[in-house]
Amino acid sequence: MPGPIDYLIPFIDYAGTLVFAVSGALAGIRRKFDVFGIFLMALVTAIGGGTLRDLLIGSTPVSWMLSNLYVYLVIGAVAFAVLLYPQIGKLRKGMFLFDTIGIALYTILGLQKALSFGLSPLIAVMLGVVSATFGGVIRDVLSGEVPLIFRREIYASACLLGAVVFLLIDSWLGDEAGMSIAIAVVFLIRFFAVKRKWSLSFLTRSLN
Amino acid sequence: MPGPIDYLIPFIDYAGTLVFAVSGALAGIRRKFDVFGIFLMALVTAIGGGTLRDLLIGSTPVSWMLSNLYVYLVIGAVAFAVLLYPQIGKLRKGMFLFDTIGIALYTILGLQKALSFGLSPLIAVMLGVVSATFGGVIRDVLSGEVPLIFRREIYASACLLGAVVFLLIDSWLGDEAGMSIAIAVVFLIRFFAVKRKWSLSFLTRSLN
Amino acid sequence: MPGPIDYLIPFIDYAGTLVFAVSGALAGIRRKFDVFGIFLMALVTAIGGGTLRDLLIGSTPVSWMLSNLYVYLVIGAVAFAVLLYPQIGKLRKGMFLFDTIGIALYTILGLQKALSFGLSPLIAVMLGVVSATFGGVIRDVLSGEVPLIFRREIYASACLLGAVVFLLIDSWLGDEAGMSIAIAVVFLIRFFAVKRKWSLSFLTRSLN
Repeated sequence: MPGPIDYLIPFIDYAGTLVFAVSGALAGIRRKFDVFGIFLMALVTAIGGGTLRDLLIGSTPVSWMLSNLYVYLVIGAVAFAVLLYPQIGKLRKGMFLFDTIGIALYTILGLQKALSFGLSPLIAVMLGVVSATFGGVIRDVLSGEVPLIFRREIYASACLLGAVVFLLIDSWLGDEAGMSIAIAVVFLIRFFAVKRKWSLSFLTRSLN
Repeated sequence: MPGPIDYLIPFIDYAGTLVFAVSGALAGIRRKFDVFGIFLMALVTAIGGGTLRDLLIGSTPVSWMLSNLYVYLVIGAVAFAVLLYPQIGKLRKGMFLFDTIGIALYTILGLQKALSFGLSPLIAVMLGVVSATFGGVIRDVLSGEVPLIFRREIYASACLLGAVVFLLIDSWLGDEAGMSIAIAVVFLIRFFAVKRKWSLSFLTRSLN
Repeated sequence: MPGPIDYLIPFIDYAGTLVFAVSGALAGIRRKFDVFGIFLMALVTAIGGGTLRDLLIGSTPVSWMLSNLYVYLVIGAVAFAVLLYPQIGKLRKGMFLFDTIGIALYTILGLQKALSFGLSPLIAVMLGVVSATFGGVIRDVLSGEVPLIFRREIYASACLLGAVVFLLIDSWLGDEAGMSIAIAVVFLIRFFAVKRKWSLSFLTRSLN
């Protein structure tokens, strides 16, 4: 019997795509790209992580190409970002909320897809993190910046921990509770990491 | 019955590969790369877009690997660029001609390949543009530059419009007329865009 | 009957992965990335070349994902690099040895895999070089540097020559002698190239 989370998953997926695309579009606007460049930034940010995951496991054509919906969402996000650019700062809290829930969901969905291709839990966890974070990496590389992920690792570490938690509890509690708890873990780690400026850099600080 | 364009397609394909490869080699020479680096620049510029398209739709081994001809063309282009470097400026008009016809052809061929894999027209148009433009994007990223596509969008917009025109008229007029007209559209847009310095940046100028 | 090289291949493969991963981790430490970024640098350096080869020929899921061992080796390499960072300079000679044997082996293994997918010897040689060198290219692009391969071409040229030698002698002498000699060729070229500062740049020096 499908529980409430089964109805929520598509909603979170689309909302996450929108928020990722808006963040990519904003990066394009700030770098003074024009409409085509802004669209490209929005697109790779929104679908880059899942695309890399699909390529690595051999699930082609890659999943966002099987429907027009993701492209429409990206086009909508670009229109939204361009038209509301001056006001968009006020939406920061809402975007942070959906962005964090989005990376949590993408982590779990990526992990499940990898497992369904027969890969080991360790590799599946890595592919979950790739799904959630590599859209941003590709966006940064294309726009000539060193990817944030190398320095702001809590973002990826939160996904990593959420994925491990999901793997540990999923078989006991079922997908619904497992997913809810894993998403909550990612959200809380990231929330407190941003709020209290957590960082892993103390581990290697002495080296430089 | 094959019409004249069926005989022209391989010729345009090879000429386009040569011109793309020469432009990549020139970028390598200007950046003082050595012979290996120049070859790599020529190769990724010539085959990068089609490679990304093939990976995304799952057509592997990617198409240029199925024949030695493309590698020979790239080697020839490198030899040509290195030996004739001082004189090559005089060939600019001829190169612009083949480059523009080349991106037009790659757009249509990429679009057709995507449709033949069962993808929607919208996604096929996007893959046509990717085929024509991402060789240049990969070249720019590898040589440490922000891809031109983000700022000189008319290049990609011309491909986009040509692809849409092809989709609209192909079923009425047949492949031959459809292709000829679509290639003419790409060519004319790009020609006037370069001549009159068209740009889409007015759409987002007020944002910065 | 398996000869001694068949027992050596896995050992060289793992040692090569370790050395590649250590060199990636060191690059991450020098750029002040934190633990997650250092791990990512180590991972892409160690598995990036083989991953690109597998994607291009359509061998998915890509090979390192089929076992946990490569990830464990990368984790071990990161721990080693972080803990022994100040002392690691003393290991330079040992690392150069395994790195060079590693690129030689990856070249031959990549070439053989491409041939087994029915690709031509020319394309197989190129995929052998890609296997050996593109981990470093991806590492450089991700960390915002112009890939060394564009300027220090002897590294790739050594692989190229080793691959050609292997192709020429393999059918006469068998895999074992072919591989041993090809690895020796790569090793000697690179050794003397570093020692005597060989470079191909004289070929294009007059152009700039």
